[in-house]
Amino acid sequence: MAQAGRRPGQSETRKKLLDAARHRFAEHGYDGATVRAIAADAGVNAAMLHHFFGTKEQLFVAAMNLPVNPGDVIPDLLAGPADSIGERLVRLFLSVWNTQESRTPFLAMIRSATTNEQAATMMRQFLDRTLFTKVAEAGGIPKARVAAAAAQMIGIALLRYIVRVPPLADASDDEIVALFAPGIQLYFDGGR
Amino acid sequence: MAQAGRRPGQSETRKKLLDAARHRFAEHGYDGATVRAIAADAGVNAAMLHHFFGTKEQLFVAAMNLPVNPGDVIPDLLAGPADSIGERLVRLFLSVWNTQESRTPFLAMIRSATTNEQAATMMRQFLDRTLFTKVAEAGGIPKARVAAAAAQMIGIALLRYIVRVPPLADASDDEIVALFAPGIQLYFDGGR
Repeated sequence: MAQAGRRPGQSETRKKLLDAARHRFAEHGYDGATVRAIAADAGVNAAMLHHFFGTKEQLFVAAMNLPVNPGDVIPDLLAGPADSIGERLVRLFLSVWNTQESRTPFLAMIRSATTNEQAATMMRQFLDRTLFTKVAEAGGIPKARVAAAAAQMIGIALLRYIVRVPPLADASDDEIVALFAPGIQLYFDGGR
Repeated sequence: MAQAGRRPGQSETRKKLLDAARHRFAEHGYDGATVRAIAADAGVNAAMLHHFFGTKEQLFVAAMNLPVNPGDVIPDLLAGPADSIGERLVRLFLSVWNTQESRTPFLAMIRSATTNEQAATMMRQFLDRTLFTKVAEAGGIPKARVAAAAAQMIGIALLRYIVRVPPLADASDDEIVALFAPGIQLYFDGGR
């Protein structure tokens, strides 16, 4: 729909770039996949890739169909009051995972990482570069504490949405926030 | 080695029971797989199964090759001082996950649960029946708080041992305990 005015070749180039990106990221990890090589695989130059997708991080988010770019939501997360970052993080997380459509890509990433060494490498590097390092730097928090909060989030994802164990699976969002926000908050407070 | 004095047929019966158990648990979940049906599949009666494995929980632990029966370690966990249960739980968890051999069966269970609906059902029922409900009852803690602690543990497992993301993957056991024990403790304290 938004592509009505584009030349016919553009959506095809876009698709080729996404396919090339998925292949390179899976094969070489997030760090090892270069923008230049992905563009070459798709038969275009790096400038064209940047025109379509911007940064490597944005390309990754598009290639993996992630509903949000974790890197984009960090500023909002850190901008609010420091004593409610735990609650904001849990609510943000639930807003993504509560709909089947938007949790599917994250679920696919977790599933691949548990079954495939290369997918684990890709997830590791993406989490480290685009999430943990950025939050740690922007918030002045030790990276280990950011990773600890992420570990809690992923554990919620696994038990609430994948294994669907009671009472986590049946709890309301507010109950989940009440249960987890204080622990998440502790990770952030402890590092200041 | 311990089987030296057994009749020849015993190790075969044992193996048949374990195969039948794995099949039934995978097919019907932890709740739906009955001891009677598993015994029948293996061509023996339920008394024989009990003779070999004891309870259904013990049979499950044997069938899944779990290095510890979660149900067995709960009393120790709850017996110590209430204000250090967080530390004891993290140390217990690390003692299991730190060796490749003993984490492999748990890893297999997580992997199956993320890719297969029946495996997720089996894991859900096993966690609920043998772990969450028991800890909650024995410790007088709301089940949601036990599940919250478990979510944190599973998140550590995923990021430290599977995705192997820094700095969680490189941290010493003591660093992991220092990082996570206060949050885990909070879950238990909050429910008293």
